[in-house]
Amino acid sequence: MIDHYLEDFASGQVFEAGSLPVTADRIKRFAAEFDPQPFHLDEEAARETVFRGLAASGWHTAALTMKLMVASDFAPAGGLVGLGFDELRWPRAVRPGDELRIRIDVLDVRASRSNARRGLVRIRTTTTNQNGEPVQILVATLLVPRRPA
Amino acid sequence: MIDHYLEDFASGQVFEAGSLPVTADRIKRFAAEFDPQPFHLDEEAARETVFRGLAASGWHTAALTMKLMVASDFAPAGGLVGLGFDELRWPRAVRPGDELRIRIDVLDVRASRSNARRGLVRIRTTTTNQNGEPVQILVATLLVPRRPA
Repeated sequence: MIDHYLEDFASGQVFEAGSLPVTADRIKRFAAEFDPQPFHLDEEAARETVFRGLAASGWHTAALTMKLMVASDFAPAGGLVGLGFDELRWPRAVRPGDELRIRIDVLDVRASRSNARRGLVRIRTTTTNQNGEPVQILVATLLVPRRPA
Repeated sequence: MIDHYLEDFASGQVFEAGSLPVTADRIKRFAAEFDPQPFHLDEEAARETVFRGLAASGWHTAALTMKLMVASDFAPAGGLVGLGFDELRWPRAVRPGDELRIRIDVLDVRASRSNARRGLVRIRTTTTNQNGEPVQILVATLLVPRRPA
C-alpha cells in the first residue's frame, strides 16, 4: 500500500474496500462488551424491540467501517487521524449475515492555516450491505501531512 | 434502574456514570480487531507518530462511552436508540491508565411530528478522563417513547 500525502488527494476521488462479513456471534460479543442492550444481545429479546430482530450496535458498525478504511487504498501518510465528525448516520440496521463494504468519497482538500506541514481532507464514507443499501454515512475531516520537500 | 419516558426528560437534566479504567492491553486488543494502526497497537511505534505514545482508537473511546451510557440512570424506555450524531469530537487522546467518566446533558426534548407514540431527546455526552479533561464530546438525538396511556 502506498501512503498518500495531501498533494495526492483531490475532491472527486473514490476509494472502495470490502467485504467484511457480520455474524450473530460477533454482534453479540461486541454488544456484551460495549453496548449490552437486548436488541444487540439476543434474537428472541430483539424481536419485541424497535429493531424487530437482532441488530449490530451502531458503534460496532462504526468500528467495522474503520477496519475497512484502514484496509483500503485511501491510506493517508501518518495514518487515519480524525479530528472528529460532522455527520454520522445509521439509516438501516446491520443484521447477522450482512457483508459490509465501504466507499470513501473525497469531498474537499485544503491546507491548514495553522500548520504548513499538513492539511485537511474531508471525506464521506458510505458503508453498504450486500444489497447496496447504506447502513452508515460518516462525514469526517482528517489531518494529512504534506509531502516532505 | 427505572425506565424513562419522553415525559420524564427535560432540558437541563444531568446524568453521570463511571468510572471505567482503560488499560494498554484493551487498547491494543480493540485496535487489533478494528483499527490496526501503529499508534493504537504498540508503544514503541506510537512514539514516532502524531500521538507521541500509545492512544486508544477514537472508536474505542466511543464504544466505552456507550458502555457508560447504558450503565447510567439516563435509561430511556426501549433502550438507547440513536438516529445518528450531530457532533463527535475527540479533543484529547485516551491513554493507558485513564479512568473514563461521562456526563449526559439533556439539551432538548420534543414530540415527533410523524409518530404520536414517541419523541426526540437531544443530548450532549461528555466523556472525561481522571483529570476532568474531555476526551470525547458527542451530540446525539435519541428516539424515546411516550408513556403509554
